[in-house]
Amino acid sequence: MTEQSTDVDVVVIGAGPAGENVAGRVVRGGLSCAVVEDHLAGGECSYYACIPSKALLRPVELAAEVGRVRGLRLEGPIDVPAVLAARDKAVAGLDDSGQAGWIAGLPATLVRGRGRVAGERLVEVTGPDGTVTRLRARHAVVLATGSVPVVPDVPGLAAARPWFSRDATTVSEVPGRLVVLGGGVVACEMAQALHALGATETTLLVRGDRLLGRMERFAGELLADSMREAGIDVRMGAKVTGVERASDGGPVTVHLAGGEQVEADELLVATGRRPATDGLGLDLDGAVEVDDSMRVPGSDWLYAVGDVNGRNLLTHMGKYQARVCGDVIAARAAGRPDDAPSLRDSADGRGAPQIVFTDPQVCAVGRTEEAARAEGFEVRVVEYDLGNVAGASLMGEGYKGRAKAVVDERRRVLLGVTFAGPAVAELLHAATIAVTAEVPLETLWHAVPAFPAVSEIWLRLLEEYGL
Amino acid sequence: MTEQSTDVDVVVIGAGPAGENVAGRVVRGGLSCAVVEDHLAGGECSYYACIPSKALLRPVELAAEVGRVRGLRLEGPIDVPAVLAARDKAVAGLDDSGQAGWIAGLPATLVRGRGRVAGERLVEVTGPDGTVTRLRARHAVVLATGSVPVVPDVPGLAAARPWFSRDATTVSEVPGRLVVLGGGVVACEMAQALHALGATETTLLVRGDRLLGRMERFAGELLADSMREAGIDVRMGAKVTGVERASDGGPVTVHLAGGEQVEADELLVATGRRPATDGLGLDLDGAVEVDDSMRVPGSDWLYAVGDVNGRNLLTHMGKYQARVCGDVIAARAAGRPDDAPSLRDSADGRGAPQIVFTDPQVCAVGRTEEAARAEGFEVRVVEYDLGNVAGASLMGEGYKGRAKAVVDERRRVLLGVTFAGPAVAELLHAATIAVTAEVPLETLWHAVPAFPAVSEIWLRLLEEYGL
Repeated sequence: MTEQSTDVDVVVIGAGPAGENVAGRVVRGGLSCAVVEDHLAGGECSYYACIPSKALLRPVELAAEVGRVRGLRLEGPIDVPAVLAARDKAVAGLDDSGQAGWIAGLPATLVRGRGRVAGERLVEVTGPDGTVTRLRARHAVVLATGSVPVVPDVPGLAAARPWFSRDATTVSEVPGRLVVLGGGVVACEMAQALHALGATETTLLVRGDRLLGRMERFAGELLADSMREAGIDVRMGAKVTGVERASDGGPVTVHLAGGEQVEADELLVATGRRPATDGLGLDLDGAVEVDDSMRVPGSDWLYAVGDVNGRNLLTHMGKYQARVCGDVIAARAAGRPDDAPSLRDSADGRGAPQIVFTDPQVCAVGRTEEAARAEGFEVRVVEYDLGNVAGASLMGEGYKGRAKAVVDERRRVLLGVTFAGPAVAELLHAATIAVTAEVPLETLWHAVPAFPAVSEIWLRLLEEYGL
Repeated sequence: MTEQSTDVDVVVIGAGPAGENVAGRVVRGGLSCAVVEDHLAGGECSYYACIPSKALLRPVELAAEVGRVRGLRLEGPIDVPAVLAARDKAVAGLDDSGQAGWIAGLPATLVRGRGRVAGERLVEVTGPDGTVTRLRARHAVVLATGSVPVVPDVPGLAAARPWFSRDATTVSEVPGRLVVLGGGVVACEMAQALHALGATETTLLVRGDRLLGRMERFAGELLADSMREAGIDVRMGAKVTGVERASDGGPVTVHLAGGEQVEADELLVATGRRPATDGLGLDLDGAVEVDDSMRVPGSDWLYAVGDVNGRNLLTHMGKYQARVCGDVIAARAAGRPDDAPSLRDSADGRGAPQIVFTDPQVCAVGRTEEAARAEGFEVRVVEYDLGNVAGASLMGEGYKGRAKAVVDERRRVLLGVTFAGPAVAELLHAATIAVTAEVPLETLWHAVPAFPAVSEIWLRLLEEYGL
């Protein structure tokens, strides 16, 4: 085992979207950078999460849209091999040479192997062949290791070889019978995608009493209705007491409190994710806590961005944090002021935007009514049925959807907005701008939605408010 | 011919979307209102423009989307009778009882007939049976008569019984060969819709050198490329010298400068619209000029909203003006202050939002680069290829699109934004809010687009700008 030692301005552990963006920003800021990655450059998002899940969901969503428009009819069911091939293309066949080339082109150095913080400003990388490289950071070490699935403590679960999100998104043969544990984004998206792609018998076992528990309740209700209409067995309040799989390749049985049991070909566990801090060499339980410049309190060199800091486990927020982090590191390295607004994370705390690519799609930004009330805001809520917007009714027959805005009555600005309905994903950014910029309702009144777009919901919400 | 005379607070001539909204707002403000309509309550938009055109375009757009997504295939061509039936349903079979009921429910009085301003605060309505009703307005008369197609001065055109937009949107039998005069929104939308619905031989004759001449040039170019790829014969710089149709039901021939000629089954003239002021009893040439409270200068009782005032011939802007107008009339009638921001049209002057529902869709708000420069702004322009946004590439293979932002360098705010690409319509409202509220680029930087939506274009544009 040879040892090499290299000095570099910044060392980033993890070449997912967050890590890559830190590298991009520090190099732009004039610093040298090494990025350590033990699996694929591009990270979870590019190969196992956002990209493949969206590739699987897009034809499912579009097929649903076609079903609502007269004059079009699909020839037979979705061509599953074609969809899987498109998914494979979207993830570049799990080949990261494109992303590795992007990092090289910054230019930054991609160091293959497992990174560990071995001391102050020191990262040790154990390569695939066991070689250890020591990277000394002149300015900063940034943790961007992402997250891993939470494995619930259920008797027999591990031995039953369950699927986690990666197995679902990389699926090559869709099981006919699928059980999904969870009621969050991954559980809902993958249950719906795999059901439409051949898992005709899909059961969703939700511990709580709703789907998408962190969002407004109506969103999860619309989604549950849609899933049930499509034939997915959605069970709320499901308490799993045990799992068993008698033989390799044989069926898996999930036992529920009350004595019920569900048999399936595969079991997908999607009960959340936790920051990936194992083996990082830090004495940590849970997320790496950081301040709004993404720096670990008490340190002047250690930073953490993306899922690993636990702020919001969302690719775009990780990238946002990475831009803040990369820029602040560059500013501090150059001795420039480090307190400009662009050098602080001001977005994570007020409720990050998020889209769930189901049918109906669900998206939200800012605070839910419940969260806003809990924080002590003087809240007024406005809701409107999206199906009553002319533009929505023209999108398809039987369009069902709903929007909800949470208003801070004292300042008359939006604290949060939620949309649920077919193809509402691109409606979200208007809300994100309105919430982020705290645009007064009186100003939004002059932002006229073009007719006949679904965006006319903005007018309806403001009218409902009383403008 | 009997004469009746009625006193009412406000008389609105025209029950299109603008007129209806004036009625709604003044009634909400405590005033009584009569609305005069000589055709259908609901107006051009509901029966002959936005609604039916979108109903015809939606399956065409969706079919194009399906063509770009692997795993889905449409069964045969678009079912034209089904599309026409859906269009008929969207326009309620040209039955306005629903809209008339809405007006009655405000409550306001719908007076059927042709309205004419017969004196100060006086409107004379000639009903379908010749009865004349005199409506005396205590506070205001509002003109909301909309617009009519411009008929170009071409020898033989009128005699050849050309189609105008109404004929295209109410089509019951799609001609196999179609010639369209014009290069604006109606020409492009209807050429594309009718071509996809059976006008296999469609020729678009454009006088200028581009489509969508009021928008950024690239948008029209992308659209022309798409039309040509679909097989539409798009000819720029076409000067029509004459039109002839030898016999009823026979073919129409369009003669072009240079000696070329084009033969077709129908000729659609879509060369613009002009304010509908004929027979209003006013000495007018062109639009009814109004101030920002929608009042005619020099008068304290005459107002005009929607197409007839010539500000922006767009349904949503007419409705916006109507809200301003109705509220300001109510405020003045009550002797309340009439200068609040909500009582002034501040949106029309800076470039109204508009969506073109073609494939690719085109949408824009604010000023084009050219307009901004002409107005003396210190302009910087940022452009980005939409196809390079991850969310767009997941929408379909070969996604082609582009975005352009026009920045006011002095204030670092957006003056205008244009998107062109498949299904970009709902992206527009974010731009409308950003432009209207003049959100600084530094604030937009913290409005994080959710991944992987097409809205990530916002991040790319800001990165291109240098943030």
